Amino acid sequence: MPSEFEKMLNGEYYNPFDPELTALRKNARELFERLNQTSMGELSKRTKIIKSLFGSTGKRIYVESNFRCDYGVNIHVGENFYANFDCVILDVAEVRIGDNCLMAPQVGIYTPGHPLDRQERVSGLEFGLPITIGNDCWIGGHAVINPGVTLGDNVVVASGAVVTKSFGDNVVIGGNPARVLKQLD
Amino acid sequence: MPSEFEKMLNGEYYNPFDPELTALRKNARELFERLNQTSMGELSKRTKIIKSLFGSTGKRIYVESNFRCDYGVNIHVGENFYANFDCVILDVAEVRIGDNCLMAPQVGIYTPGHPLDRQERVSGLEFGLPITIGNDCWIGGHAVINPGVTLGDNVVVASGAVVTKSFGDNVVIGGNPARVLKQLD
Amino acid sequence: MPSEFEKMLNGEYYNPFDPELTALRKNARELFERLNQTSMGELSKRTKIIKSLFGSTGKRIYVESNFRCDYGVNIHVGENFYANFDCVILDVAEVRIGDNCLMAPQVGIYTPGHPLDRQERVSGLEFGLPITIGNDCWIGGHAVINPGVTLGDNVVVASGAVVTKSFGDNVVIGGNPARVLKQLD
Repeated sequence: MPSEFEKMLNGEYYNPFDPELTALRKNARELFERLNQTSMGELSKRTKIIKSLFGSTGKRIYVESNFRCDYGVNIHVGENFYANFDCVILDVAEVRIGDNCLMAPQVGIYTPGHPLDRQERVSGLEFGLPITIGNDCWIGGHAVINPGVTLGDNVVVASGAVVTKSFGDNVVIGGNPARVLKQLD
Repeated sequence: MPSEFEKMLNGEYYNPFDPELTALRKNARELFERLNQTSMGELSKRTKIIKSLFGSTGKRIYVESNFRCDYGVNIHVGENFYANFDCVILDVAEVRIGDNCLMAPQVGIYTPGHPLDRQERVSGLEFGLPITIGNDCWIGGHAVINPGVTLGDNVVVASGAVVTKSFGDNVVIGGNPARVLKQLD
Repeated sequence: MPSEFEKMLNGEYYNPFDPELTALRKNARELFERLNQTSMGELSKRTKIIKSLFGSTGKRIYVESNFRCDYGVNIHVGENFYANFDCVILDVAEVRIGDNCLMAPQVGIYTPGHPLDRQERVSGLEFGLPITIGNDCWIGGHAVINPGVTLGDNVVVASGAVVTKSFGDNVVIGGNPARVLKQLD
């Protein structure tokens, strides 16, 4: 029988109050609370915390305070990842971000969903859908990325965009809901 | 003669620099600063702080850090209330939220308004309009709820929605400004 | 030859890893970290920190926690400036805000841009465009102001607006992208 953690990563309904998941979230919180209490100038200490929080990272990464997430272990970022102030990544499903990606401040990357059926939602069941972002992307400030979205390489997300579906390579997207604003070469 | 607190709750222009209001805000800040400095794992301590901060709550509630509000005493939430990371509730008017409601991260619930008349606004006068949210609602991440909005039961607010008017029961709403995206049964 | 700081303020590509710029950002962070760790009730201590962080200010100003910025020295605000909870001002170019301006919570004022050309962007080059906001303006909660925007006097920005271009005096603007919703007298 699959564990609640396995069900969660498979996009199935899972119980977030499962003891294994609760312990994982507690561990992640202790790590990002430490990060957020560390002065922004203490680069090597901060990098070490992020590397133990995330599932995998490139060598050169930087995440500003405050940063918050659910599990951390489900976040995978490539080389030269940079996240500016006050970003939130809810990683109940995998979040995979390629090389050379920039996240501006106040961005929200949300993998969790709740059932639209009222009884199911009230019962506390949740599910997650993975988010994948390619290489060389720039996510503008205050943007939101919804569960299940895949963005290709060289995608620029305009500030304040609400990204509700997937987009391929080489585009600027923006608006609520986001649509293609411009093709890039 | 009504106090500034009474005028505030009545939706009339009031003076936010009134000593009683200033003292109430100071008290609320001390409480939510304590909450935000308490590790997220300390469940019972956090619940106790929220229960002394809010006007009334159900038994089982949880509010993540950072949470911020104006007065706290004007916030009333039902059973099974959950607010995720970095939510702000400005409660210069009453905010009433029913049972089994979920707030995703980075949500803003704002009751205050300022006069559109330039001279009145510059004079520092403010007013508030209450916000009411029914039972079994889910407010998506980065959503904004404006002063005076009422949402019925079983309303799902899409991530990034800006809710500028009221909606009845059993709908998914989203966009800027929010409109009905889907009827729920 | 212009310094990286001069190039930055001139809207040219600059290298953010320049030692002078790195030192300036470190100084700003230490100041706003101190601000954010100071209880909201300690008015005079908070005002003193903001006055040493910003390039220039009026006498009577107040900035709530958490506040974050890049350099601070490039932010100039007039009399009676008020910024509510969790605002971010990225000031790689000058941000000039007039008298009697109110910023609601969770606002983002972003001067930085990155090249749309993939190779240039990945190289780490950045540029900034100044943001100017007139007198007697009210920026609603969760609003975003993009690089290069100028707003006139008596402009009200609706909550959740994404302001991508400039607007003159006496208007209410809102939406994503923001457009004129109402003329004011």
